[in-house]
Amino acid sequence: MMEYIAPLQQLIEQFRKLPGIGGKTAARLAFSVVGFSDEEARAFADAIIGVKENIHTCRICHNLSTGEYCPICTDDRRDQGVICVVEDAKDVLSMERVREFNGVFHVLGGTLSPINGIGPGELNIKDLLERIQNGDVREVIVATNPTVEGEATAMYIAKLLQSFDLSVTRLAYGIPVGGDLEYADEITLHRAVEGRRRMN
Amino acid sequence: MMEYIAPLQQLIEQFRKLPGIGGKTAARLAFSVVGFSDEEARAFADAIIGVKENIHTCRICHNLSTGEYCPICTDDRRDQGVICVVEDAKDVLSMERVREFNGVFHVLGGTLSPINGIGPGELNIKDLLERIQNGDVREVIVATNPTVEGEATAMYIAKLLQSFDLSVTRLAYGIPVGGDLEYADEITLHRAVEGRRRMN
Repeated sequence: MMEYIAPLQQLIEQFRKLPGIGGKTAARLAFSVVGFSDEEARAFADAIIGVKENIHTCRICHNLSTGEYCPICTDDRRDQGVICVVEDAKDVLSMERVREFNGVFHVLGGTLSPINGIGPGELNIKDLLERIQNGDVREVIVATNPTVEGEATAMYIAKLLQSFDLSVTRLAYGIPVGGDLEYADEITLHRAVEGRRRMN
Repeated sequence: MMEYIAPLQQLIEQFRKLPGIGGKTAARLAFSVVGFSDEEARAFADAIIGVKENIHTCRICHNLSTGEYCPICTDDRRDQGVICVVEDAKDVLSMERVREFNGVFHVLGGTLSPINGIGPGELNIKDLLERIQNGDVREVIVATNPTVEGEATAMYIAKLLQSFDLSVTRLAYGIPVGGDLEYADEITLHRAVEGRRRMN
């Protein structure tokens, strides 16, 4: 079997490092870059360097930011008394699609995962506590993902905050709006029944 | 809805230019690059620039090559009397998976497509003729994709070569109709070579 020529092989390996990109897709993407003009290739390479050089994390909430502080933390129309705790910066964007939410965020940078050596010290938990101690926080919404690890992290945070005079809430579990009962898994359905609400 | 910060948005747009990458995937890939180390990001950017700077097309067959001539054209164990005509460089790699094939290649650079303004002059057809006129070619295997346009291109080439004293063959329909060489498995490709048929 013929190998790819070296520069192509190198680019394929780079694409394979990206999440969800396997060998065939990586090869397809690399071939398409070969077909780019020099300017297009340069723009792509610059954009990659650009995210590293120009994106930092907000010193308050650890959200991605071009400046020292992110636009949400510095927006005085946002309610600094409600902190939504999320796993990573992607989740901030997901929560921002919920227009009703007008609080601020705290990005943990992952979930607790003893198997992978990720304990509380590896996450941005210490400065979440500092924010709560120093600020006027009324509610912490724990919006980690509904996975085993996200759940364990949520429990850990809830326990950690139990001595503070504030609400610690968790996003509701249930059937997705617009979904179909037929395709909901049993655990989700169970949680949806558990969390049922009066209609009258 | 919150926008992505500028450097991230720029990288997302770059990823979206790649084939088969939509908005959500582009965002996922861009976020993963944010998590790269500086060295990793640099290596990725360099690989992109690298394919443009270090990959050229072979002066004989138009296959991708790091040198002026590709390793296949300069390999004297390869039978220069059998030319396999393919649409693009990806297809050379697909054909190379068929170990039985020991000839050389000619990369057209696409297919005839009057709608998109691609006529014979836009493809590497003229120098295919020159190769045949100047060399000792016994057979031309037309291995364009089994699509409407690949088929039309094959017919065009067969007609063009009908005055020459050589076999013009077409891959057999072992390859699935409407498919793409890139995704054909080795056995299917092998059968297709085995069952190739004269076009003249």
